[in-house]
Amino acid sequence: MIYLDNAATTLHKPEQVIEAVADAMRSMGNSSRGTHSGSLAASRTIYATREKLARFFGCPRADHVVFTCNSTEALNIAISGTIGAGDHVITTDLEHNSVLRPLYRLQDEKGTAVSFVPADRQGCIDYADFEQLIRPETRAIICTHASNLTGNLVDIARVGAIAKAHRLLFIVDASQTAGVFPLVMEALGIALLCLTGHKGLMGPQGPGGLCLREGVEVRPWKVGGSGVQTYNRSQPPQLPTRLEAGTLNGHGIAGLSAALDYIQEVGLETIHAKEDALMRRFYAGVTQIPSVTVYGDFSGERAAVVALNIGDYDSSAVSDVLSQDYDIATRPGAHCAPRMHEALGTTELGAVRFSFSWFNTEEEVDAAIAAMREISQ
Amino acid sequence: MIYLDNAATTLHKPEQVIEAVADAMRSMGNSSRGTHSGSLAASRTIYATREKLARFFGCPRADHVVFTCNSTEALNIAISGTIGAGDHVITTDLEHNSVLRPLYRLQDEKGTAVSFVPADRQGCIDYADFEQLIRPETRAIICTHASNLTGNLVDIARVGAIAKAHRLLFIVDASQTAGVFPLVMEALGIALLCLTGHKGLMGPQGPGGLCLREGVEVRPWKVGGSGVQTYNRSQPPQLPTRLEAGTLNGHGIAGLSAALDYIQEVGLETIHAKEDALMRRFYAGVTQIPSVTVYGDFSGERAAVVALNIGDYDSSAVSDVLSQDYDIATRPGAHCAPRMHEALGTTELGAVRFSFSWFNTEEEVDAAIAAMREISQ
Repeated sequence: MIYLDNAATTLHKPEQVIEAVADAMRSMGNSSRGTHSGSLAASRTIYATREKLARFFGCPRADHVVFTCNSTEALNIAISGTIGAGDHVITTDLEHNSVLRPLYRLQDEKGTAVSFVPADRQGCIDYADFEQLIRPETRAIICTHASNLTGNLVDIARVGAIAKAHRLLFIVDASQTAGVFPLVMEALGIALLCLTGHKGLMGPQGPGGLCLREGVEVRPWKVGGSGVQTYNRSQPPQLPTRLEAGTLNGHGIAGLSAALDYIQEVGLETIHAKEDALMRRFYAGVTQIPSVTVYGDFSGERAAVVALNIGDYDSSAVSDVLSQDYDIATRPGAHCAPRMHEALGTTELGAVRFSFSWFNTEEEVDAAIAAMREISQ
Repeated sequence: MIYLDNAATTLHKPEQVIEAVADAMRSMGNSSRGTHSGSLAASRTIYATREKLARFFGCPRADHVVFTCNSTEALNIAISGTIGAGDHVITTDLEHNSVLRPLYRLQDEKGTAVSFVPADRQGCIDYADFEQLIRPETRAIICTHASNLTGNLVDIARVGAIAKAHRLLFIVDASQTAGVFPLVMEALGIALLCLTGHKGLMGPQGPGGLCLREGVEVRPWKVGGSGVQTYNRSQPPQLPTRLEAGTLNGHGIAGLSAALDYIQEVGLETIHAKEDALMRRFYAGVTQIPSVTVYGDFSGERAAVVALNIGDYDSSAVSDVLSQDYDIATRPGAHCAPRMHEALGTTELGAVRFSFSWFNTEEEVDAAIAAMREISQ
């Protein structure tokens, strides 16, 4: 199989990630639930992973790295834990349902006001719109670092500067970029960074994370056992326990830790350069095919995603042919990004998304281009 | 290490569980996010695991098995998704903070009324109390199947019958018993069964579950991407998607699936009989030691847990000696069960908890008894 669905999950994991999970499953107890060697092994691995994530994402404190079970949980915690009735938030048309649905819920249940920075037919936004949408009651700007549909990048340094100038919380969904693009919270003005481990970070499915700037108050999400402060009626107020309850996925976190090591060894820049080259090679190839429409802006920096359609063929039909006749894995249909599809004009067709990872090759890209050429004829 | 902290997590996993996770990490895409073989492999494994869990726990529909990231999340979803303002719920002194804190939060934020069936100094409850606490506005009974501190079992068939007679929702926390005791939702009158995969089920840390009786309405918890109904502003209403959002932990679920197969192969009764014999052997040994106080009721069926203290020694000190001088892993202190400690009179000392699994041996039990004899002198 030529796997080009890496924006959904990276199927190929570094061997050391798999080994780390297996090792953890042979040696790890429950963290924070005892002082014997099995429990301490879990606690140390988990804390060391917090430290690695904090360094990786420029989060000032390791204890402000909270483990979640995916980006979606991180975004639910971030949004519902900081935004409430009477607040206004600004977000964009690029967002995934993991941002939109928590916001719509706040809108419907608490009357929170939500404004959208619109995207044009290339999926691009005008940064001046952020400034124009700010009101006295604006509490936060929430935006993705890259569209999961087009791969268009948002200039989060620029948005972060606007948020800083107006003292707004800046919440970033880094689902599509963590592990591939440099992300330094402090430099970018990010207050809450939401991410998952199983995409660009090349870790196992399961662990995700929420990194907090010091001083950001987030209401607890799930509450329960914490291994400390048993007699406190409420979730302990200290981070990370405040936002974690129940047994952490220590086995998965051990895998994520190994994945972070792998990325450090190879080098983020090296990974990014390779993915970028593969994506641009594919783009150059498919734009030669007359009936192909590619979505998004390829003029500047972008994530390694190419979304397209062939004429007015249904994207699912194209993706099925790619899978069945060429053993090429892509994702068709709607991509949990309803406003993005509306902006692109693809609510009917959906789009066939090709997304690339460190483990893809030029040969695979060329095979995908050749397949597209055949299908389009 | 002699690992006797299995009520926190079973450290020893069947080899086939570890292999299943590793295999999944080499082959699995993102479930419900495409139709290529990687994605379908994930979808099939996840759906097959729902079917296995449904059969295992007598849940009538596989699509009513919801994956969570631990028991705590399952309990948060179950409690916050069915109980609200104006409701009254009945629970017990045996409960873990994963039940208590969600209930206290409802009490504090929504004015939900909560009544407790009290436990005596042996940790036992009087079942007549359930009937007496019922009011017109009582909505649910929430209780654990076994105390995580004493190992005392609750006769959930009896509680289920009371719930059924009064048309109350019956929510069961099976964290300590799933995988070791037969649990048939329909026969026991359970509406919502909350469980985790990494304890008695011998699966990896990460996946937990919530099994629902047909017709039980549960409000969504986290909301976000679902891979379906992209243009719906809300989380899709259909189960299991209604209560799941974002990428599932397919790798961990593959491990849980293998763990369920292992339990079926060995036989639940065989596992239960062995754990029970080890627990009773240990109990018989330590009750011979004059300065040892054992908590709980050993007269009938119970989970494989023995909590004790030596005189008025702090439980943490005893557990540390066991760990450092004998390499025996136990858990001391308070066990996230504040009302249970209050009932037992152990809020000051805590308690040293020994908990047994299928992978323990009689030799390990005898070594633990011998260690306890030495320490107590």
